[in-house]
Amino acid sequence: MNQHPKVTRTVDNSPDGTVLTSAPRDVPVDRATAAARRVVDALLRTDRANANLDRVAEELESIADHLDQHAPEVAERLVDMWHGEGVTRHDPVTGPENAIALPLVLAGRADGSVEGVVTVTIPYQGPPGHVHGGVAALLLDHTLGVANAWAGRTGATAQLNVRYHRPTPLFVPLTVTGRLVWQDGRKVGSVGEIRTADGTLCVSVEALFIDRTVPRPR
Amino acid sequence: MNQHPKVTRTVDNSPDGTVLTSAPRDVPVDRATAAARRVVDALLRTDRANANLDRVAEELESIADHLDQHAPEVAERLVDMWHGEGVTRHDPVTGPENAIALPLVLAGRADGSVEGVVTVTIPYQGPPGHVHGGVAALLLDHTLGVANAWAGRTGATAQLNVRYHRPTPLFVPLTVTGRLVWQDGRKVGSVGEIRTADGTLCVSVEALFIDRTVPRPR
Repeated sequence: MNQHPKVTRTVDNSPDGTVLTSAPRDVPVDRATAAARRVVDALLRTDRANANLDRVAEELESIADHLDQHAPEVAERLVDMWHGEGVTRHDPVTGPENAIALPLVLAGRADGSVEGVVTVTIPYQGPPGHVHGGVAALLLDHTLGVANAWAGRTGATAQLNVRYHRPTPLFVPLTVTGRLVWQDGRKVGSVGEIRTADGTLCVSVEALFIDRTVPRPR
Repeated sequence: MNQHPKVTRTVDNSPDGTVLTSAPRDVPVDRATAAARRVVDALLRTDRANANLDRVAEELESIADHLDQHAPEVAERLVDMWHGEGVTRHDPVTGPENAIALPLVLAGRADGSVEGVVTVTIPYQGPPGHVHGGVAALLLDHTLGVANAWAGRTGATAQLNVRYHRPTPLFVPLTVTGRLVWQDGRKVGSVGEIRTADGTLCVSVEALFIDRTVPRPR
């Protein structure tokens, strides 16, 4: 619970292959989140006529009630999220504590890029059998933020221009990459891509980030 | 389970305020999904030191195992999703059967636009206390697809250009709008926005769609 990084890992101070996202830990909240992720996926796949689904609904409500009863006020919880735990534990793309996150694992490369391989499943579907275009945008926006950090910069997205070259398939390994390509004062320009294993380009992105960090709650 | 729309609802054949997304139904799979959505949110908020989290993890694994045991092969399930149930029941933005979906509810307006009001919570967080930029892109991409359908067009996203005017707050009602603005053969241009209740513009989007529908599984 105290993995707040004291030193930012960048291409200048860390080896090729440095994992920039948070690994799942063998702690109850990470195990529960991984299991919740399985439930989300399985609910979309399971037989709609399963007579036990009513009981599943009751059990999930009961679990949610229990977790709610043991939750602090949101304002208090936000302070802990941003000070105590490290920012990559709870985000919706890489966070092992966020059941919505695939999660995507990103490593920094010596050439300044970041890269991850991920297989996308049913909950993230857009066109039949393919990744939702907005999910591709979510993966790329997040990857560029991590790429900027690897290059030693921070910033909020100001413009995100996504190009869809062909439908991105579900159920196969996809390589997601990002790289900072220019800097000008508070502005940073970054590019990224999603490709299939044979190198076919599915989605590309160009984005502008501006260093205007949102203050942490306190 | 057989809500496949025989007639497409468009601005030309449906009244102002027509809800274009699927309402949750009082059936077990919808109740279970709503409960799973509560679990996802509560897992990010609950006390990390709760001694019962281990048991929660075990219960969630057990539920996932059960749902998996009653799930058909994915290929078979995809056929049912796209033929039997109606396409708006399972998508990651509006789908009542998808625990990742907020869900966003969109209504068609007589002026040709579509609109929804949604409050975004912790699982979709990017900067502290604010909506992840990629999640805003996901909401807008999906909303424009629905706007195109309301105008009587279909198409896959070819380009999505998102502008972030200011951070989009969590925990307050946001109005998401979309509208088709031009058509040229197989190309469609659409715009959308996310605003807070007082009308403050947070995110805007311009997008190009091309009519190249991905075939349904069969």
